[in-house]
Amino acid sequence: MCFERAYIAQCASVAGKLEKQGPLGGLFDMTAEDSYFGMDSWEQAESEMSRIAVNMLLKKASLDVNDIDVLLGGDLLNQCTATGFAANSLPVPFLGLYNACATAAESLLLGAALVSAGYAGRAVAAASSHFCSSERQFRFPLEYGSQRPPFSQNTVTGAGAFLIGQSGPVRITRALIGKVTEKGIKDANNMGAAMAPAAADTLKNFFELTGTSPRDYDAVVTGDLGYEGSALLAELLGREPCGAGGNFCDCGLLIYDRERQDVHAGGSGCGCSACVMAAYFWEKLRRKEIKRMLLAGTGALLSPRTVMQKQVIPCIAHLVEAEAV
Amino acid sequence: MCFERAYIAQCASVAGKLEKQGPLGGLFDMTAEDSYFGMDSWEQAESEMSRIAVNMLLKKASLDVNDIDVLLGGDLLNQCTATGFAANSLPVPFLGLYNACATAAESLLLGAALVSAGYAGRAVAAASSHFCSSERQFRFPLEYGSQRPPFSQNTVTGAGAFLIGQSGPVRITRALIGKVTEKGIKDANNMGAAMAPAAADTLKNFFELTGTSPRDYDAVVTGDLGYEGSALLAELLGREPCGAGGNFCDCGLLIYDRERQDVHAGGSGCGCSACVMAAYFWEKLRRKEIKRMLLAGTGALLSPRTVMQKQVIPCIAHLVEAEAV
Repeated sequence: MCFERAYIAQCASVAGKLEKQGPLGGLFDMTAEDSYFGMDSWEQAESEMSRIAVNMLLKKASLDVNDIDVLLGGDLLNQCTATGFAANSLPVPFLGLYNACATAAESLLLGAALVSAGYAGRAVAAASSHFCSSERQFRFPLEYGSQRPPFSQNTVTGAGAFLIGQSGPVRITRALIGKVTEKGIKDANNMGAAMAPAAADTLKNFFELTGTSPRDYDAVVTGDLGYEGSALLAELLGREPCGAGGNFCDCGLLIYDRERQDVHAGGSGCGCSACVMAAYFWEKLRRKEIKRMLLAGTGALLSPRTVMQKQVIPCIAHLVEAEAV
Repeated sequence: MCFERAYIAQCASVAGKLEKQGPLGGLFDMTAEDSYFGMDSWEQAESEMSRIAVNMLLKKASLDVNDIDVLLGGDLLNQCTATGFAANSLPVPFLGLYNACATAAESLLLGAALVSAGYAGRAVAAASSHFCSSERQFRFPLEYGSQRPPFSQNTVTGAGAFLIGQSGPVRITRALIGKVTEKGIKDANNMGAAMAPAAADTLKNFFELTGTSPRDYDAVVTGDLGYEGSALLAELLGREPCGAGGNFCDCGLLIYDRERQDVHAGGSGCGCSACVMAAYFWEKLRRKEIKRMLLAGTGALLSPRTVMQKQVIPCIAHLVEAEAV
């Protein structure tokens, strides 16, 4: 998909305590020490985080909620209730999306499509995740204090929101919708390995279709492959791994300091790529420190039930190309 | 949203045993006596149903899977795995959507937008639900045989798939994305009452924005309000209820014979509006028995956890206008 006129006009990000202590901690618009964000449950906290991100976005852009034509977004909770309940407090036409941790990229590309085609003047794309609500839904009650293998990832507590309009400092130029891919991985603790083939597939297809290569970009950013998945992606693409001097990087590796923080293979979750894009890369693009980047949001389309039923983990990666104007 | 050129070129529908025994039973492309659809679990059965619907659609349209540019769809299962796993067997770019039972209308309107804007030559919109997988996820294990109040609805076992292209016998002319609405209903057994205000809101807004009224349409169809919700919608709009001679009708009331079948207030689920639209209304439009219709897909954005946390039920309704060509 090539977009005539779709721009990121503004971004907002909200994150949790662990994310605040990470290398990007100072870049988020708001961080909270309280994992409940003042609410009664972690599910409501995630919803509150999503609501705050959208409202902060509107404030930063000096817009009223009625200036928005459509809100697109989703999260990892059952029935996408974090975003659904956030939308309940925002009187805006709402399209709920779900492609696991690729939801941020999905909402960006669909928002760009609706704005560029003129169906919406201004769209807000949003995605969120919360460590505590995810952990108890996908794995175990937090109170168990269950151990996790070193290649598992830490769900980011964070939300990102993007204002997509017909002008702005960052242009969304092209996008590619990913295909569902799986290579037989069934270990729900090893999402990075499950998702790496999907990222490789989408990136390869994009480079082939557009006649571009990684060297045409200042940054080729994956959503949340973490350490394990990023190493596998490098292998699949025949490249140097993240951090080895190339232009590949992963939001799940950027958001935490793996040496200092107990996050195993790095970050994951819808909120991971959403808030790293809305805080770190948005600033880099806006200041023209990077001119052109790719975001390949990666998602694992599993559920605890499919895992219990010993199914494979189907994965997807959606790609968005962004350019500083 | 007004579409320049978005057409429903073909439809396919798959349904279960109870739906086969209902008034529309003879119209579905495939029905199965076996609630497992030959698979090992109800979740896999739902996925299989979704896969069959898309493959049957391609067969009816004499197309190969590679002729499709994008598959859009979703379902009610946690993490939308019915559609995610179906997409895993279909090598097509995939956009996962979730707006509960409004997902069929959501996929139709987004598919129409992508095709009309030229981002996709052909899109497939799909949605599914399964009584057994939904019941055990949202309510109780089926083995409990729990009683349900008379105003509760029966989740339809069914899947519908729509081929959206640049020509065809049915044109998608306009659409309206709904806003999340709730009026304080917290009873998860009374989805009809929860969703009726959302349907009323979207219909009112559409009539106001377009200068049309119900009498401009041969049918004004709601997704799955059931008996209770349809009666409330009639009240909210100051109209005669469904079946009282007017042009309002509800997929949840059409799919079952409430006198003869034990379905309480009627059908519900993503598959309800999907397979009634793909079987019954598709035939009516194709044969020009109706010329112009509105489909207001209705969805309740709750989860079992939000119900346990005593939250309200936010609801949404997306509207699609369709015309026989």
